Amino acid sequence: MSTQVENTAIAQTEQIIGQLLHTWDAQNKRVTGFFAKYADEDYMEEVAPGRSRAIYLLGHLMSTNDGLLPLFGLGERLYPQLETLFSRNPDRTFDDIPSMAELRSYWENVNNTLTAHFSKMTAQDWLSRHMSVSEEDFAKEPSRNKLNVLVSRTVHAGYHMGQLIFLKKKENA
Amino acid sequence: MSTQVENTAIAQTEQIIGQLLHTWDAQNKRVTGFFAKYADEDYMEEVAPGRSRAIYLLGHLMSTNDGLLPLFGLGERLYPQLETLFSRNPDRTFDDIPSMAELRSYWENVNNTLTAHFSKMTAQDWLSRHMSVSEEDFAKEPSRNKLNVLVSRTVHAGYHMGQLIFLKKKENA
Repeated sequence: MSTQVENTAIAQTEQIIGQLLHTWDAQNKRVTGFFAKYADEDYMEEVAPGRSRAIYLLGHLMSTNDGLLPLFGLGERLYPQLETLFSRNPDRTFDDIPSMAELRSYWENVNNTLTAHFSKMTAQDWLSRHMSVSEEDFAKEPSRNKLNVLVSRTVHAGYHMGQLIFLKKKENA
Repeated sequence: MSTQVENTAIAQTEQIIGQLLHTWDAQNKRVTGFFAKYADEDYMEEVAPGRSRAIYLLGHLMSTNDGLLPLFGLGERLYPQLETLFSRNPDRTFDDIPSMAELRSYWENVNNTLTAHFSKMTAQDWLSRHMSVSEEDFAKEPSRNKLNVLVSRTVHAGYHMGQLIFLKKKENA
């Protein structure tokens, strides 16, 4: 009986983590789909007057995901040279940015690398601290774990997806 | 030993659900904060040219959350008459919409009602089917549960928050 309850609880935890990984992946796929839809030059436009260009937001989302590698203790960023460009400064700070073709390939590479790592992580791994919180602080705030970061990155991708959708004028506007 | 593993798994499930509720609540608070920031007439503006007005997006987010009551089998919508206005049709379909003061109060009322219900829900409740899926289909797709809806609504709020933030021009744009 005890074993049954235990198995149920373990199965529940695994199911929930699986769902959250699926939602994270679904948001990434939404971004991928958006950036496969139009001609490259269309992404050079601002999503709204005075706001970021779509190409910048792809770089920003890529750099955000790339940052999960060190934050989760999984390794170094794949594209550390792009952090300044896309995570530390707003659009148009620098003249030279990678092309759409390059950014699409970086985006795919980062997400594939993360997915491979994530598939090996246990519930215990997900609930362990991320690398920006000390063991001491984590003991006081156990919610500062990797799973919470994954969820917050999922919401972050949704946030920018809501902006990207503004790129193209409504057909009958 | 078995009991210890069991307790760990149960505690993990509860911790994760607690974190997800916290993230849902944090997104709602972000919306609340945004709509407490400016004068009422500012929210009558479109968030970007040809897009929804901010006031409509508050109504839309309110109506979306209100829909969780029937979807989770917790009761009827508190404001069923607003579903057509804010969930089934785009902005400017109808001339008469509630005032900002009314919408703020509906928003708060809906969220307080949901929070009271959510505080009583168990892990088993969260992983049970939502009311738009039949028992038969749920048996095949157990991820169509209430917790998954909560997470997708959290991302949805983030999506519109990304748009709302465009309402005010950057000061030095």
